[in-house]
Amino acid sequence: MKYCSICGSKVSYKIPKADNRERAICDACGEVHYKNPLIVVGCIVESEGKILLCKRSIEPQYGFWTIPAGFMELGETLAEGAARETLEEACANIEITRQFASIDIPHVGQVHIFFCGKLKGSYGVGEESLDTQLFSEDEIPWDDIAFQSTYFALKKYFEDNGRNNGVHFHEIRK
Amino acid sequence: MKYCSICGSKVSYKIPKADNRERAICDACGEVHYKNPLIVVGCIVESEGKILLCKRSIEPQYGFWTIPAGFMELGETLAEGAARETLEEACANIEITRQFASIDIPHVGQVHIFFCGKLKGSYGVGEESLDTQLFSEDEIPWDDIAFQSTYFALKKYFEDNGRNNGVHFHEIRK
Repeated sequence: MKYCSICGSKVSYKIPKADNRERAICDACGEVHYKNPLIVVGCIVESEGKILLCKRSIEPQYGFWTIPAGFMELGETLAEGAARETLEEACANIEITRQFASIDIPHVGQVHIFFCGKLKGSYGVGEESLDTQLFSEDEIPWDDIAFQSTYFALKKYFEDNGRNNGVHFHEIRK
Repeated sequence: MKYCSICGSKVSYKIPKADNRERAICDACGEVHYKNPLIVVGCIVESEGKILLCKRSIEPQYGFWTIPAGFMELGETLAEGAARETLEEACANIEITRQFASIDIPHVGQVHIFFCGKLKGSYGVGEESLDTQLFSEDEIPWDDIAFQSTYFALKKYFEDNGRNNGVHFHEIRK
């Protein structure tokens, strides 16, 4: 950031009083602009032993497969965000059953929080997807999974083999 | 936000193509500026059956008590953030043992993620604290706890009575 989003003046990078990190501080109005990690929410959607995956129609990882997931929005809970992403990317209504994974990715400033959910009714292909399909474990396109966090979650899901082993914690480091 | 943080021009609030929410979009360079929920990380720090609390020296809730907690920073994991906040607010090194609570607060756009940890050595009074103290359950200043999320976590902690009942999930609605 180069300009203050409140008054439009230039910002300088300095450590504010009683802080220990450089922030963008407005030269005119003094506003301190913080930048913080983002939350990605998603869902492992189950239907009769199969998992719903989406083939991405957008970058990054165009053409690769992922669980429905995306950035959490203001005004929603983690679970509501996961359900919204599933509706947007796979036109699917789901019942969220539990939190499944919490994955730190500090080098990109993200935390990925994934749920398990059950498909309620039909599914389709949302705007950010080229295709959506239900896969059994041996049908999953393991070599074409879009993100490491999704790969981890899917592997753990099948390792658990239907057992609820609580939330799986994981870190992805560069 | 009124101005683009990249080029300094005015922004207008519009729904971008292939989106469904109003965003601040730069009238000149077209940059879409997203605003997303923030993560607060904190720790229930245990030492010989007592819990470490901090009396806040800053707003909001000046003079009220809280577990060490604050906004997660870029480049750290959830647990690293909780440990950093404990060092900053209570000058205490800790060993994080497990994730304890995940609390959605959608009306303020926050998710609070709290850990349990063990105090390693001494503690002190950080810049954002007026005082820090170890409290047993019957000594906790329940009427002077700063935040609902902290109150929930402390109550659950003592209800668990030393058992690991996994992560406690909770929502706070206005």
